Amino acid sequence: MPNISQKGVHMPASPIRKLTPFADQAKQAGKKVYHLNIGQPDIETPEGMLNAVKNIDFKVWAYTASEGTLSYRKKLAEYYNKLNYNITPENIIVTTGGSEAITIAMMACFDPGDEVIIPEPFYANYNGFACQSDVVVKPILSTIDNGFALPPIAEFEKLITPKTKAIIICNPNNPTGYLYSKEEMLALKELALAHDLYLFSDEAYREFCYDGREFISPMHMDGIDDNVIVMDTVSKRYSACGARLGCLITKNKEVLKAALKFAQARLSPGMVEQIAGEAAVDTPDAYFETVNKEYTHRRDVLVNALNKMEGVFCPNPGGAFYVVAKFPIDNADKFCQWMLESFSHNNATVMMAPATGFYSTPGAGTNEVRMAYVLNSTDLEAAMTCLEEGLKAYPGRAI
Amino acid sequence: MPNISQKGVHMPASPIRKLTPFADQAKQAGKKVYHLNIGQPDIETPEGMLNAVKNIDFKVWAYTASEGTLSYRKKLAEYYNKLNYNITPENIIVTTGGSEAITIAMMACFDPGDEVIIPEPFYANYNGFACQSDVVVKPILSTIDNGFALPPIAEFEKLITPKTKAIIICNPNNPTGYLYSKEEMLALKELALAHDLYLFSDEAYREFCYDGREFISPMHMDGIDDNVIVMDTVSKRYSACGARLGCLITKNKEVLKAALKFAQARLSPGMVEQIAGEAAVDTPDAYFETVNKEYTHRRDVLVNALNKMEGVFCPNPGGAFYVVAKFPIDNADKFCQWMLESFSHNNATVMMAPATGFYSTPGAGTNEVRMAYVLNSTDLEAAMTCLEEGLKAYPGRAI
Repeated sequence: MPNISQKGVHMPASPIRKLTPFADQAKQAGKKVYHLNIGQPDIETPEGMLNAVKNIDFKVWAYTASEGTLSYRKKLAEYYNKLNYNITPENIIVTTGGSEAITIAMMACFDPGDEVIIPEPFYANYNGFACQSDVVVKPILSTIDNGFALPPIAEFEKLITPKTKAIIICNPNNPTGYLYSKEEMLALKELALAHDLYLFSDEAYREFCYDGREFISPMHMDGIDDNVIVMDTVSKRYSACGARLGCLITKNKEVLKAALKFAQARLSPGMVEQIAGEAAVDTPDAYFETVNKEYTHRRDVLVNALNKMEGVFCPNPGGAFYVVAKFPIDNADKFCQWMLESFSHNNATVMMAPATGFYSTPGAGTNEVRMAYVLNSTDLEAAMTCLEEGLKAYPGRAI
Repeated sequence: MPNISQKGVHMPASPIRKLTPFADQAKQAGKKVYHLNIGQPDIETPEGMLNAVKNIDFKVWAYTASEGTLSYRKKLAEYYNKLNYNITPENIIVTTGGSEAITIAMMACFDPGDEVIIPEPFYANYNGFACQSDVVVKPILSTIDNGFALPPIAEFEKLITPKTKAIIICNPNNPTGYLYSKEEMLALKELALAHDLYLFSDEAYREFCYDGREFISPMHMDGIDDNVIVMDTVSKRYSACGARLGCLITKNKEVLKAALKFAQARLSPGMVEQIAGEAAVDTPDAYFETVNKEYTHRRDVLVNALNKMEGVFCPNPGGAFYVVAKFPIDNADKFCQWMLESFSHNNATVMMAPATGFYSTPGAGTNEVRMAYVLNSTDLEAAMTCLEEGLKAYPGRAI
């Protein structure tokens, strides 16, 4: 029997899915499981987008251009230019989800052994994508006590070597919900320019900024065009995760040329999705107003409930739909598994993602948990009651 | 400005798309261009599949399981078991097109520097995928004079080193249309077992076998379960290239486990496509009978017309919808470009793919061209008349 690859051995399993067997067992045992572990919103996809799917009128479900249809890229450019990105359709390569935007950008920019600096905790799949490209992740710790703000630039400088090729940020952040300020973004720009680094900006949660705070993209900053690569997706914007439709945006012509070759090798993004994506751009503002109001309310419910629990601390994030909270526990992996395996309150329990999976530094985040507020506030409140009781009953309670 | 990756520099551009700018110019100049360059069929997608898209009734376009929905994998297993593959839904990982089945299989099985043997000419994007995985392609020449039959096993043996990890075949073959015989498949099985190699079987064109010939998959052969990985797609089967829906099938549990981790990193295949793919399995046999009759007719039109041209030779392939023909020309790249740039007959010309892009050995296939018979026979006949006149007029004619 031939061996699998070393990459196959070392590829990390998804931290948000590794407890799934325990959740399945809990459900089989008749428990209700509140899913706060995964970023699958319950929000309805805009009608216009679904209607575009229902109204397809072609006879041959054909390949599109590898970079995406011109028609969709034009519409996307309109969307981004309303946000003052100042781009053309030629700056866009349509991808199969935000995931492929990341993998194509990595392949176009990084060679095996290259290093990338990522503030941690970070989106867990960056580890997997780095493993695929043989790229070395250099994490830089942001701390819960500081609300997960950008670590001081001096800390980044310490990690820079001749092999450093990029800084990768996710803004607003998954898993922390932190929204980078204008000052932080300007500091990252100066850092990228000073050391000739790429600045990768994962903006999957751009639409979800709360309390009137402003979203700043590197696309808004002058003099850094050749360094910036934006990775985006319709997944969260339109609650259309299953559409697998994203894009990569850059004004760097060499990167575009290289990225197109990787896009050509996989032939084409989905055709129906691009039709739907085009319709999605016309989603009325009222949709986003309603959704943001709902998420703000849920965040408030979640953060307030968490901070009222004894020994729990949860910063109040400015965006996305995640929080990372600190619990009075010995070990988040054990606690999250125990909640599914051994605990119930009113015959229900809560599934959460241990934050350890979002850190690259061993031992970091041991007493932290990520929660996605993708349930309605009634369910969220019930889940919080359940969690509070669970924390009281947990044998590994630390205080 | 940061450098792009060496991979980005060396990644091959798509050979079937590199003449596109010349085709665009020809069209702008008012010429009709017959597209025989790309495997995009004009055949209609089955109604049942398109109706499944039109009839979607969900409210949230959600992620599915990373390995694909159980419901679709069950239906797929039914389809494969009718072909006697003897598999379960657990042997299948649903992918974004056949392309992703290939890239995930390569990542799960190969490490940088590993070698894979592929009979050439081969599907051009294998070069790109190998470049992505830092895998070394060892081509083994099959010749047009031999109808592109499998080269003698002794030739394979000569190429095997300690780094050899797999044999990759595409059957029926793109670009040659060659259909491997039972004897050839058994010889490959013995070879794979003798040297503990993976046997990757790309079966995108399985449905397209002509003249009553039998399709043999390594899935039909005993004692080789752990070595075999099948890569498949709905693209050609249901003329649904733009659906980007494929799968990887193997009975090797270690490979499945590793492949699932790569599938988890990119989260999910498309949801609407899996609904459509499930409906597609119920496509009536009559659809395939009609389509195969049409392709057989087109192949006959094409091959007969080609072999009547002076100095042209085209083997009669047993499957797929491609032929590779030998022309009396100095250089296929020059000739194909000249046809678009400098030639017209009745204000029309033909776009073809120079076969050089399908060989890995430098200089191989210089006087060969790949044509896809994806046009109706009237257009094909007109294209052949046009090609014949072009060959007569071409200044680089070799005889």
